[in-house]
Parts: sequence; C-alpha cells; structure tokens
Amino acid sequence: MSNTFGNIFRLTTYGESHGAAVGGIIDGCPAGMPLDVDFIQSELDRRRPGQSAITTGRNEGDKVEILSGVYEGRCTGTPLAFEVRNTNQHSNDYDEMKSVFRPSHADYTYTAKYGFRDHRGGGRSSARETISRVVGGAVAKLALKQLGVTVQAYTSQVGDLFLDKNYMDLDLNLTETNAVRCPDIEMAAKMEELIKAVKQDGDTIGGVITCVVKGVPVGWGEPAFGKLHAMLGNAMLSINACKGFEYGMGFAGVGQRGSQVNDIFVNKNGRIATTTNYSGGIQGGISNGEDIYFRCAFKPIATLLRQQPTVDLNGNEASIKARGRHDPCVLPRAVPIVEAMAAMTLLDACLMAKTNKI
Amino acid sequence: MSNTFGNIFRLTTYGESHGAAVGGIIDGCPAGMPLDVDFIQSELDRRRPGQSAITTGRNEGDKVEILSGVYEGRCTGTPLAFEVRNTNQHSNDYDEMKSVFRPSHADYTYTAKYGFRDHRGGGRSSARETISRVVGGAVAKLALKQLGVTVQAYTSQVGDLFLDKNYMDLDLNLTETNAVRCPDIEMAAKMEELIKAVKQDGDTIGGVITCVVKGVPVGWGEPAFGKLHAMLGNAMLSINACKGFEYGMGFAGVGQRGSQVNDIFVNKNGRIATTTNYSGGIQGGISNGEDIYFRCAFKPIATLLRQQPTVDLNGNEASIKARGRHDPCVLPRAVPIVEAMAAMTLLDACLMAKTNKI
Amino acid sequence: MSNTFGNIFRLTTYGESHGAAVGGIIDGCPAGMPLDVDFIQSELDRRRPGQSAITTGRNEGDKVEILSGVYEGRCTGTPLAFEVRNTNQHSNDYDEMKSVFRPSHADYTYTAKYGFRDHRGGGRSSARETISRVVGGAVAKLALKQLGVTVQAYTSQVGDLFLDKNYMDLDLNLTETNAVRCPDIEMAAKMEELIKAVKQDGDTIGGVITCVVKGVPVGWGEPAFGKLHAMLGNAMLSINACKGFEYGMGFAGVGQRGSQVNDIFVNKNGRIATTTNYSGGIQGGISNGEDIYFRCAFKPIATLLRQQPTVDLNGNEASIKARGRHDPCVLPRAVPIVEAMAAMTLLDACLMAKTNKI
Amino acid sequence: MSNTFGNIFRLTTYGESHGAAVGGIIDGCPAGMPLDVDFIQSELDRRRPGQSAITTGRNEGDKVEILSGVYEGRCTGTPLAFEVRNTNQHSNDYDEMKSVFRPSHADYTYTAKYGFRDHRGGGRSSARETISRVVGGAVAKLALKQLGVTVQAYTSQVGDLFLDKNYMDLDLNLTETNAVRCPDIEMAAKMEELIKAVKQDGDTIGGVITCVVKGVPVGWGEPAFGKLHAMLGNAMLSINACKGFEYGMGFAGVGQRGSQVNDIFVNKNGRIATTTNYSGGIQGGISNGEDIYFRCAFKPIATLLRQQPTVDLNGNEASIKARGRHDPCVLPRAVPIVEAMAAMTLLDACLMAKTNKI
Repeated sequence: MSNTFGNIFRLTTYGESHGAAVGGIIDGCPAGMPLDVDFIQSELDRRRPGQSAITTGRNEGDKVEILSGVYEGRCTGTPLAFEVRNTNQHSNDYDEMKSVFRPSHADYTYTAKYGFRDHRGGGRSSARETISRVVGGAVAKLALKQLGVTVQAYTSQVGDLFLDKNYMDLDLNLTETNAVRCPDIEMAAKMEELIKAVKQDGDTIGGVITCVVKGVPVGWGEPAFGKLHAMLGNAMLSINACKGFEYGMGFAGVGQRGSQVNDIFVNKNGRIATTTNYSGGIQGGISNGEDIYFRCAFKPIATLLRQQPTVDLNGNEASIKARGRHDPCVLPRAVPIVEAMAAMTLLDACLMAKTNKI
Repeated sequence: MSNTFGNIFRLTTYGESHGAAVGGIIDGCPAGMPLDVDFIQSELDRRRPGQSAITTGRNEGDKVEILSGVYEGRCTGTPLAFEVRNTNQHSNDYDEMKSVFRPSHADYTYTAKYGFRDHRGGGRSSARETISRVVGGAVAKLALKQLGVTVQAYTSQVGDLFLDKNYMDLDLNLTETNAVRCPDIEMAAKMEELIKAVKQDGDTIGGVITCVVKGVPVGWGEPAFGKLHAMLGNAMLSINACKGFEYGMGFAGVGQRGSQVNDIFVNKNGRIATTTNYSGGIQGGISNGEDIYFRCAFKPIATLLRQQPTVDLNGNEASIKARGRHDPCVLPRAVPIVEAMAAMTLLDACLMAKTNKI
Repeated sequence: MSNTFGNIFRLTTYGESHGAAVGGIIDGCPAGMPLDVDFIQSELDRRRPGQSAITTGRNEGDKVEILSGVYEGRCTGTPLAFEVRNTNQHSNDYDEMKSVFRPSHADYTYTAKYGFRDHRGGGRSSARETISRVVGGAVAKLALKQLGVTVQAYTSQVGDLFLDKNYMDLDLNLTETNAVRCPDIEMAAKMEELIKAVKQDGDTIGGVITCVVKGVPVGWGEPAFGKLHAMLGNAMLSINACKGFEYGMGFAGVGQRGSQVNDIFVNKNGRIATTTNYSGGIQGGISNGEDIYFRCAFKPIATLLRQQPTVDLNGNEASIKARGRHDPCVLPRAVPIVEAMAAMTLLDACLMAKTNKI
Repeated sequence: MSNTFGNIFRLTTYGESHGAAVGGIIDGCPAGMPLDVDFIQSELDRRRPGQSAITTGRNEGDKVEILSGVYEGRCTGTPLAFEVRNTNQHSNDYDEMKSVFRPSHADYTYTAKYGFRDHRGGGRSSARETISRVVGGAVAKLALKQLGVTVQAYTSQVGDLFLDKNYMDLDLNLTETNAVRCPDIEMAAKMEELIKAVKQDGDTIGGVITCVVKGVPVGWGEPAFGKLHAMLGNAMLSINACKGFEYGMGFAGVGQRGSQVNDIFVNKNGRIATTTNYSGGIQGGISNGEDIYFRCAFKPIATLLRQQPTVDLNGNEASIKARGRHDPCVLPRAVPIVEAMAAMTLLDACLMAKTNKI
C-alpha cells in the first residue's frame, strides 16, 4: 500500500535512482481522453536536473515512454504504464555512502527498516522517484483541463526571502520565466543570488511553495477521513523534504477571531460565493467553488558538499562529504512536483464525487 | 472510503450530532490485548463538553458501550464495535440553520454535495463525530502502551498567546491540570482569560496544539506514499478546523541552511541516535528512533453567537446568529482528539511494518 | 481489511453470536435515496431462525435499528449504521465447546489464529454475522430497484434432490411460498421431507442455491481483477459453508466445444443481445446486458446433534454432541443472504462504473 | 482498483497484446529475499505460446526484465517492476475485429463500457495480460518456498475426459512431462489427441484445472470477508475463461450429510490434524494445516477459426472467422497461471496474518 497513491485515479510508482528505470502505472485513467504525450514530456522537462545554474549539474534526458493504455491517441480506460530509463548515472560517486549514513537523509532509516539498501544515488529515496509523480500529474492535468480546472504552483520563499504578496496580486504566467520559479521577477533574482551563494558554500537552503487551484466546482472531497485538504496535505507531505502543509489562512489564522476570518456568503450572479476566502476554497473538507490555495514548507536538502560527522553501519564514528551533483535548493524543481501531486489529488476527488449519488 | 481511517488498524465511524448514536467499528485490533474500558471512558471524558467554563455548556454524558470483539476482557481479533447514544440534544436550537448557511461552516458544501443535509447540530460535520476517534485512539493507546510508546499533546498557542518553550522544557504531566490543557501553568491562566473574553464577545479564537510521541522504534512508516509524517498529517488535517500541520522544524526550518539543521548521528550506548532532532523523529518517511513531534493549526470555530450576514438555500440574503451551546475555542477539547488520531496512525504504521519481511 | 466488503458501497460488519449486538456500517450509500426501513426488516425476517419446522428453533426477534445516515426518511450520503441487539441467547448450551473443537467448524482455526476465541454460539463465526449482510443487501436492493435491477435466489438442490429446470422455466414468485424456498412446489415438498428426515437423524445436509439478476445494463465490472463474476464469486464464497461458485454454464460448460456454447450476438430492437446466454450475462468480466445467473454450493452444516469424536484444546481425545438449536440445512435461510451479497456486489460495480469516464 | 491484486503483497498489471509491453509492479515484496530471475523466466516459459502442437503457433520470446526493487540479487523492500516487451505481433490478423464483435469474447462489453477499444490481439483482454500474473506468482513462490509452501496445479479434465483420481494418488512431478500438463500419462495422451482433433475442426474445448497447496500452516485467512477460499476463488475467477471455482469437496459435497463429510480431529504426533480432508484445508475461512486443494472450470476459448454469425459496431448483421494463431484449449497454458494466482494469494494471506497480534 505504500507505493500507490489515490483511490480511483491511482498511481503506483517504482524505481531507484541507479536501477534500470523509474516509472509507474496509472489505473483509473478516464477512458476516451486524448493523451498529449508532448505535454507530459514538457512537464517532465520542468523537473529535469541541469536546467540552470541553480540546479544539479546532472544532465538527465528523462524521456518518457508510454507502454500501454492508449490507442489511436486516446486513453482506453485500461492501465497507462510509462517508464523513463535511467542513464548518465555515476554510481561511483556514491561508493562511500554504502556504509556511511548521511545526516538527516533516509540512509539510516531504510537500512534499519529493510536490513540493507541500494545506496547508489539514494536508491528509492532519490528525487528521481518524483519523475513518476510528474507523469501522473501531467495525465491528471489533461483530465482536469477538460473540466476547466488549473493548478499552478510557484516558489514563494527561499531561505529568509519571503514573497509578501497574495497570489491574486501576482501574474502566475511569469513563474516559468526564471530558474527559481517565482512569479515576482525582482524577488526571483534575489532568490537566485541566494541559492548561488549557498551552493558556493557547499550548503543547502529551504523554502516554501505556494499552489493555487482554480475552477474546482463545489462538492469535491469527502467529509470525514477523505477531506479534500487532508488528501492534499497527505499528497504534499509525501514529497521528499516537505516538512509542513497549510491551506487557506493556515497557521496565520490561529491568532484570529472567528468574526475576523469567517467568509461571508453572497449571491454572485446566481452562484453562491464568498466575499473573502480565508477558508482556502474548502469548507467541511469539501470544495466550495472558490480558489483552493495552500503552502508547503521544504527543508534544506540533507546532502551537503561539505564534510559532516556521522556514523557508519556498525555505529563507528565516521565523516562524509558528498561528491557528485546535488541540488543546493529543492524549490525550483519541486514546483512541478507540487502541481503534479495536487492535480492527481483533485482528479481523484472528482472521480470519487461521481459515486455520491445513483 | 471516506469514513474509514487506517490500513491495518482501521476505524470506521458513523453518526450525526442529533441522530440516535455516534460510534464506530475498529477492525484489525490486535488479538489477545486486554481492553481497559475504564481507560477508554476516561479518554472520552477528556473530550466531553461541559468540562469547564471555557467549553460549551452542553452536558453530554457520552458513556461508551462496547458491543463486540471482546471476550473475558481481551480483544478477540474480531471487530470491536462501540457506540455512544446521543442524549441531551436540543434540536430546536438549530431550526433556523435548516435553510440558512453558517459562514465558513460545512453547511453549504454538504448541501451542495449531497442535495440536502441533516442540519441539526451540524449533522455529520458536528464535533460529536470525534467521539469515535477518541475511542479508536484509546484502543490504539492501549496497544502502544504495551510497546512502550506514549502520545502526549498540549495546547501551545491560543490566539496570539504563544508558548515559547520546547516540549522538552515542559512538564507534560501538568497538561491535564488546567482547563486549557497547557502544561505551562502561567500561560494556561492567560489563555483561559483570553478564551473567556472571546466568549464574552460571542466570538471564537484559534490556536495550535503540539503533540509529542516517545518510544517509537526505528522502522515505522513507508517510504513513498505512506511516509509516517504524511500519515500523521493526513490524520490531523482530518480533524475539524485544522488548517495546517508541520513536523520537526516545520515551516521555521525553511529559512535555515542544511549545515544548521542536519541532525548528526552518534553512537549512544550502542544505539544510533542523533545529537539534535530537527527531523522530528522521521527521516525519509520512516521513524528513526528519536521523539516524534508535530504541530497542528486550528482556526477559530465558525459558529458565532453573534449576528452574521449570509445567504439561504435559494441564494437570498439572510442573517444568522447561533443560539445554543458552542465552544469559543476548539483547542482544549481537541487535545485528546489529536492524541487519538496520532495513536491510531502509529499503531497502524507499526502493524504495516510487520509485513516488510517474511 | 477482513471485515469490510466492497469498494465504493462498503459494508463493515461486527458482532458475535452471544455478544451485545451484531451490526454494521454502510459507507458509500447513495445520497438522496429514500430508505424503506420496513423493507429492510422484512428482508431480515426472511433469514430469521424459527420460521418453520426445518430451521433452528431459536426464536430471535432480530429487530434492526438504524442509527445514522438518514434524515427525514432519505439517506444523507453519510454512513448508515445499524444494529440488532442479541437476545434469547442460551450461552450455557455451548459450555462444552469452550475447550473441545467441533469437527469441520471454525473452532480450531480461530483458536489457533488468535490464541483464544469466544466460543459461545460460534462467536464471530456464527451465522448471526449474516444479519449485517442482509441489512446491507436490503439497502443495496433499494438502490438497485431505482435502476430496474432485481436479484432473486432460490434453493435448486438439497442433498441429491436436484431441480432440473432452467430458471427461465420457473415462476420465481413462488420461492417464498414454502419453507425451503424452492419455486417448484412439488420439489419443495420433497426437499422439505428430506430435511425433516435428516433432522430426525441429528444430521445435516447440503445443497445448491441459484441466483438470477435481471436488468443490469452493459458495462458493470472491471476487466482484470475486478471482473464482475470474480466479485460475485468472492461475495458468495464469503458466506459460511459455501464450497463452490459457478456462473453461466459453469462446470457443465467444460465438456463443451466453443461452437456449441458461444453466444451469438443479434440486434434485438436496436439493442445488441445474444441468442443464448451460456456466458451468464458477463463477458470479459463486464456485464453484457443479459441476465446474470450463478450457482453456489453449500456443504452440510458442521454442527451435529449427535456424538462425534474430536480433540480438545490440549490435543487430547474428546467427543462432542451439540446441544441447543441448530439448522439441519443452511439452504432455506441462505437464500436471502445470497441475494444480499449479490445486491451489494452489483451496486458496488455500478458505482465503480461511474468513474470510468469524466 | 481494478488492475491491482492483493492487500499487502500487491501486483498491479498493465499492457495490451499489441502495445509496447506488458508488465507490472509488485509492491509489498518482502525485503531481503534473494530473487532468482532464472526461476521467474522458467515460469514464464511454462505459459509461453508455441510450446507444443496443441498451443497457439505464436512464437513469443517473452523475456522478462526486472527494472527495480533488487540490489545485489536481493529484494530491497521497494517496488519490484518488470516488463516483457511485445514482439512478433501480427496486428493485421485482427483488422476485421475492429468493428465486428467475436461471440462470447470481451469485444462488445469493452466497447460498450469504454466507448471504444484496442481491438488488436484482444487488447487488454488478451491472454498476454497473464504474463504479469506469472511473474508475480513466481516471486510469490520464491517467498513461499522459504516457508516450505508448495503450489502445484495440473489439468484434470479436458472436454469429457475426466481424470478420476485423487491428487494424492498422482505423481505431480509428472505434470510437466507432457504438453497438456496432466500427471497421468495415459490420460494426458488421450487429452492431447482430443485437443488436436478439436483444433483440426477450427473449434475449441474447455476443461478443469486442479491445484494443490502443501505446507500452509494453520492460521492464514481472515474470518469474514477475507476468507482464504474466497480470496482464492476471487483470484481464480479473475483468470480469463474461468467459469467456476470449488474447494475441498466442492459441489460434490452438497449431496452429502454432515456425518459423512465432517473431518475428524486427531492428535498426530503433537499436531492437531484431521483424518479426512473434505474441508480442503480451510475451516471458517482460515487454513487448518492440511493440504489445500481446489478446482477451476475453464470454458472453451471463444475465438474460433471458423465462421460465426455476429453483429458489428452499428448493430448490423455480420460474420467473423478468426485468422491468426489461437489456442484450441486454454488448459495447458493456464496451469502455471492458476499456480501463480494461488501463490500470490497465499503469500498475501501469510503477510496479513502477521498483523493479527502485536
């Protein structure tokens, strides 16, 4: 149950960083939907390493191959399998990690849980696992597009550089214009400088990604344990390095009074709408027709290009300094992953909602 | 799928506020475990309304009855069903809510999703639904106790009153000594005053609950989509009014550099341990043997004892002022609910981990 | 996962024979559907002991109480919980079974699996567990009725008395006219005589139930692992004492050639139909619009009112003769249970099919 | 949910006959287990077409590639993905099937359910889908072998040629010595002759496969809806062309009295055993330590190499005669598939049983 995501629209993923391939199977893909493979590839290209000076220098082609579930360009309703072959792996870069645990990485817990691990490139805990999520998310986006739903994420904080603007005051079309994926061009430049400086130090830094979903009709999400925001939180917290999730007013709302943050209902041209949106588009776990927005906290990446004390497999003192090619900041490449997880979650909620009535 | 929580240890809940009963079925309860019904009742008593001046004046007895799954005091491995009969309901208090939507409540989304709703006392969206969670959590706690695992939550913020102390610097045994469930007595008094003042205004206020789990061995949690913290986040976000979840350093960690917050491994008397615990006891989605801790943001309760503008079923302008007995602040009574959801999540992860090897 | 049945329309059951109650929770019950509680009770009455001279003499009232999920007579889309209190239990009748295993019963395997068991009345393995299934099935039937789908089962064999007629040549409305639930009145009389003779011997006897489902549209059932007949087979084999399942031509078809049993498609007033129905209404795991029919083999009940050799908890030789009130033949009372399991399966497949397209 | 099999040990499959590949992902594969890829390939070779004169003339290499989940020859506990590339496809052989429905095949129901289908080679309904099952089953067999559990199936009936011997009176090691996979050499020769004659007629014929599982300890299987035999029945009925399932005495037992077929418990060298095994190794849904055995009915394959009347997409009268390479009898190649589904089911039940106690 640990490598499958979703209830109706279900993605099952596989793959280690230095194995033969990474990929997955999408079950529950709506039948009849045209599958735009170029779009899927373009989404993959957004998460690809080697895009810019602030991401890892690894140059992975990451070409997706669709293996099933499509006939004459349309989804058949049967499982859609896909894979990306692993190439350009430098397994030797990881030799010393075989027996020494990187601090704050998954090295130790995997070894303790399973008895041993594939240490090369982080094995299953590698960020390459997210390739499958981006493919799944791209397929979900294609379905959501038909329903008029859009999902857009952007970097809203890097280190202490915090973008102090509401998403409504930003032009989200600018997100892809810069390497850091921040729609505020000035802030983006500052963030990029900060990441470069951190990289120069062999260090890493964290940040926040904000995600906005527009066009969701009222009624998606299940009341008790399938609350739409709980599904979204679960999805985001399943992304490597994600340490927190909040939606609507989030943590900032705890200091407020109900009279300050209740969203008042009004009749907006025949549609019941709210004058404010502290709720973040979800009330009682169910979408209310307003924009859905949420924020995800990402910690600094654990792998440092500098020496750190640690222990080895036998508990002996050791020291480790990563070689090879690593991101100094997860944020830029995590933006399409956040979108992907959100898109799959929403499509799943959409399909679940279809079963509420006969 | 929406009213069942968990994978192996599974709680399915039912019940509306003004229906005949609330209750649930626990499937996957370990066989042979002694069932301490007094303990279950004592946990229920912790979430009961009418405990103090700062909670709702409703006086619900909430006596739990175990209907199955126990023989001669021990769990048989078959489903454990339980119920709490609803009594002392004042359905008339909710008459005007039949056709008018409370701002920021689930009234509108339920109606839109299902076509109609049981409006009395909030129906299924009532906090009474959490009775079942507390029972499920109490059973999970009994199992965890046998494994040496403890779960303790407390109120760490109410409005802008923020308890600026690490959980390690608090005596968590003091949590139950005051109505607000804050282990810092001075802060608890201030929080209580604040809640009383807010209540006086017919208003409500939010806050934060911190939860600490001790004794979890290394190896619980699944790597990809069953990450232990994602399971916890999903659990917490399924609680009414919860708007955010963070674990370990959480949102505060995004401003840090990897070199500042990586937890260094050391050999502590033969056990691999970390010198710090920014990770919050979970690395790569799997417990690492350190304390697990996390924080949950709760918004101010939506139901106000003052007039608010809104619309009715037909989209016409309306106004609503709740009558009856409502909490001004969800925090005090949410503490045992947070513990319950955490306990069930952890026991579930424990049982899942048993299947990793043959 | 062991006490929940279904994917979207999900029944979770609980309860031991001599515990406080048996009951269950239905999750995924379609919203808005009128709930005819009298119909549910009438279905329960069909499985009730003490109906006739050929069923157990236990006189259980078995009055169902609905606890949630209904408001003003209609299902709200929230979980529908129900219970039947256990009364008229004679626990003393089972004293000797505490430490001695009945041959071919669940006594030994339960004890070995869980370490101990509630032996009274068979505990969880009691036929009383099927009360919950009949309630779940009755709710499913109400939904199916709105869709024009009917489910009718009948006794087609008892011992070597075999009803050698196709269901199409029977008047299924006669099924309820006799105690054995066989729509052929003459055969029913013979079967009843046989059961009485067997009872007289303190013995038991098996038989076959045939079930016919009419009105299912084309398209229900999933192709690979959710084949409609596999779902039905799983459902039937979950009924106590069921040893076999076949649909369409079943085992009899293995001796045939393809040219003899292929169902030829024709255009029947604009609808694609088949001239014969060896397929049993399901092709490739998906309903094809023809009648669905299947047969279930039930073994003789294991509990005998005569002495049998066996062993006790410690493996010592022992002997057991059941006292109390037991059915000599499971068939008559299993008819409504077969219908119930079929109805739930079909409604579940119907709801699953709703998610195939957006 | 339709393309995933299992609860803990879970196989998700994909692939169409004439698509790029067929394959799957195994989640929940026990960590640390050595993976014998040669054994997996040898199992695949058993189901391969073109093995003999009585199977299809298609010569598919069907070489399996393992893509993940293995490191230094052992399973890592992460998902094990595999694929078999499709080669040697003659898509043109299926051109006329694009718009004309084969009688008793899945052509019509797929089209009606999904709106269209990949008709080439049967698309998803092709027997090539079972490649993934055989791989999954081979992995499960490797795990079961460590536990001393063996799974052996054989052809026990073809047409009206019925092997009238108990499995205990056969040498199951002879099963693989002949093309029809019947351990009775004389009967095997007769069956082979029959199949050849049927093939000569452009016709097809059905049969029965018997499967025997030895070495299962007491305690596998869940009591209510996860009964071990219901899991097995569901598994078998998910195989193409399977029309019936029975275990233990099955349908033959319905004519018996309880006193004739109850299995008497005895103490056999300190182990509680039964003197007979009408129960088929399962009592109350839980394995009792005796041999498990069951039988599966397979209908004649629907695709005939002779002319049959039918209709086309528009409901117009049409006629179809399959070209290309098709099996005249599914039995020989279904033997390893039955074993595979049984092995996965049993390993899954084994892993589920680990969670019954803490």
